[in-house]
Amino acid sequence: MIIDRLYESVKNKGSVCVGLDTSPEYIPNCFLKEHDNLEDGLFDFNKRIIDAVSDVCACFKVQIAYYEALGLAGLLAYKRTLKYIKNCGCISIADIKRGDIANTARMYAKAHFTGDFESDFVTLSPYMGFDSMEPYLDYVRDFEKGIFILVRTSNKGAFDIQYMEDKRGIKVYRHVADKVCKIASYYKGKCGYSSIGGVIGCTHVDEDAALRRDFGDMFMLIPGYGAQGGTAGDVAVYLRGGNGGIVNSSRGILLSYKKHEDGEKKFDMYARDEVIEMREAIWNAAGIRNE
Amino acid sequence: MIIDRLYESVKNKGSVCVGLDTSPEYIPNCFLKEHDNLEDGLFDFNKRIIDAVSDVCACFKVQIAYYEALGLAGLLAYKRTLKYIKNCGCISIADIKRGDIANTARMYAKAHFTGDFESDFVTLSPYMGFDSMEPYLDYVRDFEKGIFILVRTSNKGAFDIQYMEDKRGIKVYRHVADKVCKIASYYKGKCGYSSIGGVIGCTHVDEDAALRRDFGDMFMLIPGYGAQGGTAGDVAVYLRGGNGGIVNSSRGILLSYKKHEDGEKKFDMYARDEVIEMREAIWNAAGIRNE
Repeated sequence: MIIDRLYESVKNKGSVCVGLDTSPEYIPNCFLKEHDNLEDGLFDFNKRIIDAVSDVCACFKVQIAYYEALGLAGLLAYKRTLKYIKNCGCISIADIKRGDIANTARMYAKAHFTGDFESDFVTLSPYMGFDSMEPYLDYVRDFEKGIFILVRTSNKGAFDIQYMEDKRGIKVYRHVADKVCKIASYYKGKCGYSSIGGVIGCTHVDEDAALRRDFGDMFMLIPGYGAQGGTAGDVAVYLRGGNGGIVNSSRGILLSYKKHEDGEKKFDMYARDEVIEMREAIWNAAGIRNE
Repeated sequence: MIIDRLYESVKNKGSVCVGLDTSPEYIPNCFLKEHDNLEDGLFDFNKRIIDAVSDVCACFKVQIAYYEALGLAGLLAYKRTLKYIKNCGCISIADIKRGDIANTARMYAKAHFTGDFESDFVTLSPYMGFDSMEPYLDYVRDFEKGIFILVRTSNKGAFDIQYMEDKRGIKVYRHVADKVCKIASYYKGKCGYSSIGGVIGCTHVDEDAALRRDFGDMFMLIPGYGAQGGTAGDVAVYLRGGNGGIVNSSRGILLSYKKHEDGEKKFDMYARDEVIEMREAIWNAAGIRNE
């Protein structure tokens, strides 16, 4: 089960998930100019970041939207980035948030678990219902793949649908969490967590302890850290003994070089420093000793 | 406003939306063999279909999942298909069902309203909330683009989230429809409909008349026809004077050649016959005279 690899990775390297939401604007100008084309510039930037942080982070999350926005050149860089992560022995999460039914879902599963865009985990959106998840489950069972299903996100709009309450006062996102845990229970690894986890934003802190208590089995992909407002204290409540989740930061890491005068030349080293600092902050907040 | 173009197209050519969910398995073997590579085979198949039906259908819906599943070669065919639809003066709907927040949504909007993958309309998923729609609205206002937001889908799983009821017994999908109409009201064309419409499956017929009555302003993209079980009678309830919506069929049209012995050689002509037949059936069920 892929979740066992991810669990081990968190145990050995900490809970930081490095978000490669790489926009050309994020890349130092001097670095971009060294490249003949955008595809190479994007990929080489990612490669430098991956090389610099792979021993201090749990995994990489690649946000496909940033690559789609650049058309075919972007998707070439996306493909090469995923392959590079794999070749480094690291774990990739394709943040695709797809959600469609039947034959179409089968196509998305094929698209992102095999071939050019193969990744270890994908993120999925549940609005069309849980039958839309089925085509992915074969890959989870037979091909060491995993999924994270959107449960509660960290944006304002989360309140529009996710927070709607049913007759008993139970929110939509709680129903989703419930269903995710039910499906997840069939795909558990040796570590006790499942290869099917949930995406839980870390910026609605009031109810987070309850969420962790009620869905103790759920491995969580936690966005919203750093640039989006979440702190180490906010995420610590989700992590038990330092595991059970990964905490994503993208811009906070990719753009950390901008805080330094010599940043453009050493963007990868500053990204590494940022990852280490974030990892320590989370360890401290979660009460984990850094060995 | 793009909706005025679509409205006119429905008025002049009927309400059929031809779904180009083109899987290699759908393409006649002898036709595929004439091509050196998959990209050319896919594109040429689509081209033949487009040429054969463009004067008898309202628009084309291209399901990106089928192309993503084939990696970069598939996305090259996707790009060429969208460009060809545009060059023919026809309207394209990119069925992408994306749904993400802030910067990421901006990237998706850029990806599918400009550049390699430019289309006229996109479909979007609302689970993350309505702030996730904002980045698309600039394109609707300034660049003749449109969106269809998932309201109620035609699969079984629709009941999982879309049919959840709040304290007053109002279903999630009704809240979504309500919100779609509110946003839509700012982007109305001369035809009275908005460039922001809803996706409404035609396979839950009990409540369809109420939906049409309560959301009279909503231009609807209606999937679920034919292979998915919907009939002309089911969709007629949504169409007022024959307009106000488009009815998608994909496999029913693309695979109609399989019903004929000489189908493989004339797949495009049989697709055309199927579109005309579907158009007539809808006109008849909606009580529209075919002039």
